[in-house]
Amino acid sequence: MDLPNLRWWGWGALDQSYDLSNRPGFWPFMQAHLGVEPGPLAEPVPLDSITLPPPRLASRAELLRGLRKKFGATVVHTGHEARILHAYGKSYKDLVRLRRGEVTHPPDAVVFPESEEVAALIAWAAEHDVALVPFGGGSSVTSGVEPHGVKPTLTIDLSRLNQVVRVDVVSQTVTAQAGMLGPALERAVNARGFSLGHFPESFEFSALGGWIATRSAGQTSVGYGKIEKMVEAVRVVTPVGIVETKLVPASASGPSLLELMVGSEGAFGIITQATLRLHRKPEVSDYRGVMFRRFEDGVAAVRQIAQGGADVVMARLADASETAASLALNRAPHSPLAGKLAEIGMRALRAQGYDLGGKSCLMILGIEGKRAHVAHNLRAAMGICRRHGGFDLGRSVGNAWLRERFALPYLRDIFLGRGLMADAVEAATTWDNLAQLYTALTDALRRAIQASGVQPYVMTHVGHSYPDGASLCSTFLGKQISGREIEQWGAVKRAATEAILATGGTLSHHHGVGADHAAWLEREHGPLGVEALRALKATFDPQGIMNPGILLIRDA
Amino acid sequence: MDLPNLRWWGWGALDQSYDLSNRPGFWPFMQAHLGVEPGPLAEPVPLDSITLPPPRLASRAELLRGLRKKFGATVVHTGHEARILHAYGKSYKDLVRLRRGEVTHPPDAVVFPESEEVAALIAWAAEHDVALVPFGGGSSVTSGVEPHGVKPTLTIDLSRLNQVVRVDVVSQTVTAQAGMLGPALERAVNARGFSLGHFPESFEFSALGGWIATRSAGQTSVGYGKIEKMVEAVRVVTPVGIVETKLVPASASGPSLLELMVGSEGAFGIITQATLRLHRKPEVSDYRGVMFRRFEDGVAAVRQIAQGGADVVMARLADASETAASLALNRAPHSPLAGKLAEIGMRALRAQGYDLGGKSCLMILGIEGKRAHVAHNLRAAMGICRRHGGFDLGRSVGNAWLRERFALPYLRDIFLGRGLMADAVEAATTWDNLAQLYTALTDALRRAIQASGVQPYVMTHVGHSYPDGASLCSTFLGKQISGREIEQWGAVKRAATEAILATGGTLSHHHGVGADHAAWLEREHGPLGVEALRALKATFDPQGIMNPGILLIRDA
Repeated sequence: MDLPNLRWWGWGALDQSYDLSNRPGFWPFMQAHLGVEPGPLAEPVPLDSITLPPPRLASRAELLRGLRKKFGATVVHTGHEARILHAYGKSYKDLVRLRRGEVTHPPDAVVFPESEEVAALIAWAAEHDVALVPFGGGSSVTSGVEPHGVKPTLTIDLSRLNQVVRVDVVSQTVTAQAGMLGPALERAVNARGFSLGHFPESFEFSALGGWIATRSAGQTSVGYGKIEKMVEAVRVVTPVGIVETKLVPASASGPSLLELMVGSEGAFGIITQATLRLHRKPEVSDYRGVMFRRFEDGVAAVRQIAQGGADVVMARLADASETAASLALNRAPHSPLAGKLAEIGMRALRAQGYDLGGKSCLMILGIEGKRAHVAHNLRAAMGICRRHGGFDLGRSVGNAWLRERFALPYLRDIFLGRGLMADAVEAATTWDNLAQLYTALTDALRRAIQASGVQPYVMTHVGHSYPDGASLCSTFLGKQISGREIEQWGAVKRAATEAILATGGTLSHHHGVGADHAAWLEREHGPLGVEALRALKATFDPQGIMNPGILLIRDA
Repeated sequence: MDLPNLRWWGWGALDQSYDLSNRPGFWPFMQAHLGVEPGPLAEPVPLDSITLPPPRLASRAELLRGLRKKFGATVVHTGHEARILHAYGKSYKDLVRLRRGEVTHPPDAVVFPESEEVAALIAWAAEHDVALVPFGGGSSVTSGVEPHGVKPTLTIDLSRLNQVVRVDVVSQTVTAQAGMLGPALERAVNARGFSLGHFPESFEFSALGGWIATRSAGQTSVGYGKIEKMVEAVRVVTPVGIVETKLVPASASGPSLLELMVGSEGAFGIITQATLRLHRKPEVSDYRGVMFRRFEDGVAAVRQIAQGGADVVMARLADASETAASLALNRAPHSPLAGKLAEIGMRALRAQGYDLGGKSCLMILGIEGKRAHVAHNLRAAMGICRRHGGFDLGRSVGNAWLRERFALPYLRDIFLGRGLMADAVEAATTWDNLAQLYTALTDALRRAIQASGVQPYVMTHVGHSYPDGASLCSTFLGKQISGREIEQWGAVKRAATEAILATGGTLSHHHGVGADHAAWLEREHGPLGVEALRALKATFDPQGIMNPGILLIRDA
């Protein structure tokens, strides 16, 4: 088996990592705020040293033989590395366990079907009461691809469902198989003059089907919407048949079947194909930094922009902590002169009340489209920003952000290598409640980390904005409690989730429910809401073989 | 009981009607295209002459007494007029039956609860196995408010749920009770500087809850979206409890419960309250007429506008038949000079290939918002139109359309009064399929009307456009076959629906399923899709008392 060039114990490609050289502010920041000294990064245990539980299927050897016979040896894999690579997603909790070599519930086998084999695989699993875990890019951060069943479990790796079915240049849509990863899909539509406009941080290692199954959001969601706004139709293979929603722009034919499948997280069936709306590749892109004196000024500007003030694709506002941290990640100036000029610029800004590393907040504003559209909306957006005290830092700041837009998950591996807990929680609420949610969430995170006896660093940004509200994403850091990393993290995660729900935020804005949030689903939807989801689950998956424990916790 | 000032046998308010005076082109057009001569309008039978079946509840007198005792005489009504006013919606089929005095399945009683009484009413109905039909404005054109049950049936008139609960000026949303009619709700938010942006043709006589229950679309949906894009949250009282979706701008907490309730047509429960997104009342509105030489030129322009070309709220394109008909409805010029100038203008346009009353097509283009936004997007939209041969007819044509935007349902009463069948069908499809759907639908309508032995007039417009497709709405006219009006209409309706489904269009884009489309629902969603909806129905309404026969046909 040709396993992809992936870091089994961390993020992304083996030949990529976060480049710390020439970032002189990084370690001083770490020392000051987290008490972490520079030093060598701890290595994970060797892959070979990990002991896996024997495949439950193997005890029924004829079953595995039957599976192999039916689908072929190139489809069915039971190797050590394949099982480990499919045991977890990419959450902090997952990486802690992988680094330790703690792989207690890997799939019994990993199956790599071609598109037309999916239905037969599900039928085979139903016949033999085997559980199935759909696996796209495997970037879940909610334990959404970790086998939770008591049944023998196959992970269905969809990476061979990697074809574009059709680009409809008239309707501006692409129909593609669900296993296509972001870059391949984006390249395919770029070649026809289009773009997806969907760039989650996981973009390089997440798949079309996973985006839809988890209600993902990209960095330019202000302009192009979350995935549920982009998706026109899906094809879902369930244990009792296929649901193929109609290729139509909108409908009044009853409740939306499409919106039942978006967010279904593999619990109803496997999304094998989907159609997404496209937009023309922008003629011009303008990304720039805007500095605000205070977080609330920036929030007011983002809100006014989102409420019809200007047509932008991104207005990502970091709070003061996140702004200070991003400053600490800056590369050193090219020359002593550039360094001196930067120093002078900083002083000049400070004289005007912009206190970088203090209370000031950085917004990355992105506008894309035709030249006249960008010019018009840049004028409108910057007008709004200026009215709230925004200072235009220009395009170089925006372009620096763009260059590293997918890099931060690699940085997390460095944090873990230096014994740091590093995770992010996210939620969304209405504008009238955003300040309350911000305070409740960041306070809860700081308090819970302090309660574990370590110094917290919590940084937050307003990521995705809508006319009626916005999402908050808080990254939290703190030294790991050695040997109790999972418990420490669990207490922080619980505190954050309770704070979100108590303040009226949604359980998740773009990470999904998975297993990690499933216990809170009833708090989100009410008992009757969860009962409705259970009725759907019983309809599509009467045996309970589809991704058990994900989305809905099993009945006690 | 104070019954509203409504025309029981037709559309709207008793003191309003379509003014035919000073429209010299109307009767000549009717004579030429439909063989209908001017003449007095046939009257419906007198209200008093209608014989209603005795209320099924009355045979169980103690039940009705119990209901009255529990809720009071001001809530429970069994009068002749109340039952007739709630027996039907406002479809062609409904009005034919009302005019004849054919009211065979009226509700046994009509109940006017206040908000807090809804849950108790549903509990009472569940206890006594009485069916309930939710009734907002009563403007359904799919038999969605007509009692279909075999059980005794109460219609729940929601007109007393008419309060604004909250206008959130920060999040720009309004929370209101479901029985509020369009004008009252729009006025309430106008007073705070906002607008709904939701103006279906039924606006003056349709209610918030009905808009949501049927997935309604307004005339400015290109800019503000269909109701499902506007609605942030709903409160639905079902026989087994209340579903209250969360007030959040977006979420990744599993499948969308909100999108299950939008389009549920009273089959799961009663929508009692909802929160809609608002937008600022536009500073400037620019509505204007644009003439295209051929329908396909106009379609190309609408598509380019909808695919990011310009930010407009409306781009409604009539085909040549609808353009000719709207010309026939024009008012006479103010003066002989104006008449002469119009004649000269017409000739000049004809010399440039714009053949009004022939192949040319009228678009009404609407742009709203801040002054700079309107100026920018008018430039962009008109640039696109011109590239497709569009001729700017200016704002007077747009303003004339605005003045009569809600008037056409009144005209239908005149058609019925002169013995004409008059109805509209609508669907949506992707842009690549729009021409095929247009041809299939209009051909099917013409053929089916001809098959009944009369001359057809079929006119169509592209109403609602999206980046990936658009809706078509076809109005069809033809002389009634006296005594067989319903059968004649049924054959035409069936032919149109079959043509829509065979060509890949959606069963309904904005009228809903009701009883009229329910038999085709499986063609739309597939057997498994319908099974999922049945599972939801069984969860929320295990006894089957909520709007029986609507959305889902009963099992045989």
